[in-house]
Amino acid sequence: MTKVHNFSAGPAVLPREVIDECIEALGNFANTNLSLIEVSHRSKEFVAVMDDARSVVKELMNLGDDYEVLYLQGGASTQFLMVAMNLLENKAAYTDTGTWASKAIKEAKALGNVDVIGSSEDKNYNYIPKDYNITTDYDYFHCTSNNTIYGTQMKSFPNSPIPLVCDMSSDIFSRPLDFSKFDLIYAGAQKNMGPAGATLVVVKKDILGKVSRKIPTMLNYNTHISKESMFNTPPVFSVFASLANLNWIKRQGGLEAMEARNTEKAGILYSEIDSNELFEGTTAIEDRSIMNATFVLKDESLNDKFLAACAEAKINGLKGHRSVGGFRASMYNALEADDVRALVNVMQTFK
Amino acid sequence: MTKVHNFSAGPAVLPREVIDECIEALGNFANTNLSLIEVSHRSKEFVAVMDDARSVVKELMNLGDDYEVLYLQGGASTQFLMVAMNLLENKAAYTDTGTWASKAIKEAKALGNVDVIGSSEDKNYNYIPKDYNITTDYDYFHCTSNNTIYGTQMKSFPNSPIPLVCDMSSDIFSRPLDFSKFDLIYAGAQKNMGPAGATLVVVKKDILGKVSRKIPTMLNYNTHISKESMFNTPPVFSVFASLANLNWIKRQGGLEAMEARNTEKAGILYSEIDSNELFEGTTAIEDRSIMNATFVLKDESLNDKFLAACAEAKINGLKGHRSVGGFRASMYNALEADDVRALVNVMQTFK
Repeated sequence: MTKVHNFSAGPAVLPREVIDECIEALGNFANTNLSLIEVSHRSKEFVAVMDDARSVVKELMNLGDDYEVLYLQGGASTQFLMVAMNLLENKAAYTDTGTWASKAIKEAKALGNVDVIGSSEDKNYNYIPKDYNITTDYDYFHCTSNNTIYGTQMKSFPNSPIPLVCDMSSDIFSRPLDFSKFDLIYAGAQKNMGPAGATLVVVKKDILGKVSRKIPTMLNYNTHISKESMFNTPPVFSVFASLANLNWIKRQGGLEAMEARNTEKAGILYSEIDSNELFEGTTAIEDRSIMNATFVLKDESLNDKFLAACAEAKINGLKGHRSVGGFRASMYNALEADDVRALVNVMQTFK
Repeated sequence: MTKVHNFSAGPAVLPREVIDECIEALGNFANTNLSLIEVSHRSKEFVAVMDDARSVVKELMNLGDDYEVLYLQGGASTQFLMVAMNLLENKAAYTDTGTWASKAIKEAKALGNVDVIGSSEDKNYNYIPKDYNITTDYDYFHCTSNNTIYGTQMKSFPNSPIPLVCDMSSDIFSRPLDFSKFDLIYAGAQKNMGPAGATLVVVKKDILGKVSRKIPTMLNYNTHISKESMFNTPPVFSVFASLANLNWIKRQGGLEAMEARNTEKAGILYSEIDSNELFEGTTAIEDRSIMNATFVLKDESLNDKFLAACAEAKINGLKGHRSVGGFRASMYNALEADDVRALVNVMQTFK
């Protein structure tokens, strides 16, 4: 099979051995002589998968029993709603760092009062706002750790006197953090964790149960906590594949190893962007994401020619999001440094 | 690989060629040289899958352009909420035919007025209520076509003067119906359609947009209609596998062929239940489901022994739901008549 360099923004590249593990389980899952997608989610074999998938998250994040790990459905887009449903009583504070953060704000505003206490909208979201104060009159503070479309990433997180909620969809498991600073973390699996179809929620139990509204059953985190993510049929395949991928991360050396890989790859690409006179980066240097590098050709008329050269070199998924244009190289955990070198090679040849 | 006779209630048996198609796509999807779970959902290859998955549903159901087909997440449990969110303004009429219908009623009641106009709760849900009138003062009428736990199935549907909404999770695509009688049909994929993780919604567009409440973005059918099920990242793998399975149904001869298969299998099993003096069926004969047959041993002390004999014969998933006990044989489309004969053989030997 021809090797494709997969820079897709998500769904995205996964380790070959994770894919092989999925293929094997589709053929015969855990010696049941049944396919992974034919077994009952109540079978002891799948319950073990779900248990492992929940516990490995805590292990990688170094979190204790005060946190619950949930595998839900509906993507981060559904979490925009669930966060506000479960936590918003009087008012909430959000930062607006682009498309996805804006959508989270919109859903919360439909349910209550929201103040946007930091925003980079003034510069088309090309930096991370930092000069804001989180005060105790808010129910919670919400931020987005990494902005795929704009290529920005939070390098540090505020010490929040109120529950800290973070959408980590596009950089979860890419680096070690003090995860105990956070009270609720959520992420669609399909960028750095596994296939589309599963949504991870990590929540500190003591922040729940404090709003007065009646929360619909499926939107209530406590529903899913009480049934260990098995209130209804979970997305079996996506949970299995996520577990396989999280185990792969563990085998590589955990989040420290991921950060080393990701920093190396980002370094190779940003150094070419900065040294190659045809290109320029689009984000504030200090806020550059190690997951998604966004850049443009100074002469936009060369765009199609450059994309053609990339296609020729089997480089996939480089076109920028339709809302900003230019190019975006997504370099999730499973991407190899050699994939980035292949891109750099095209950029150099293009010059 | 040892052949297992898979009577699981869902997730459930799928055709071997569907599983093989999934395995192939996980290795190399549509000649992209990428795995199905690594490609962008915006790639032309996956957009084609989604388009086909939507159109084959209309083809199998013989529905026209006044209907929309959606692939969502969250299972039927989320539909219990979405149906009421999108349709309930003044009051709604429901029938209560067991656990899942009751849950649908509970979610709707949290949003508005609900009348249960037919119920079989008086006899532990062992029949389908039929003597009710659907009046025009309701916003819609909701029923559950097949009740997995109790083994009952609606053999005909009322002519409803108001929108007819049906949870078909456990018998969708098992038989031809006049689907144009229905205004909204929903089904979790994991019983008769595909793997867990996708939820099918078929909706007649003109019933939407009539409630005054503000519907959260992800719970609004119109959000997903306007983006052709791609408002956010869809459950890629589950949609692909569902399409493969729907194409398999088409190749077998469509819903007429499925009904013939399913009627034959159910006939073999019910005739053994009725003739074998050790066993008895638990549901009203006229309402017996061709998908899930529920039965008990007259002498319950033999239960474990019977299950052991089934296990010995590689018969899987026969234990009844924990809320009713006894046995349940789920005979979804992909189950073969020979699987049922294997079960009947154990029942005869047991005698």
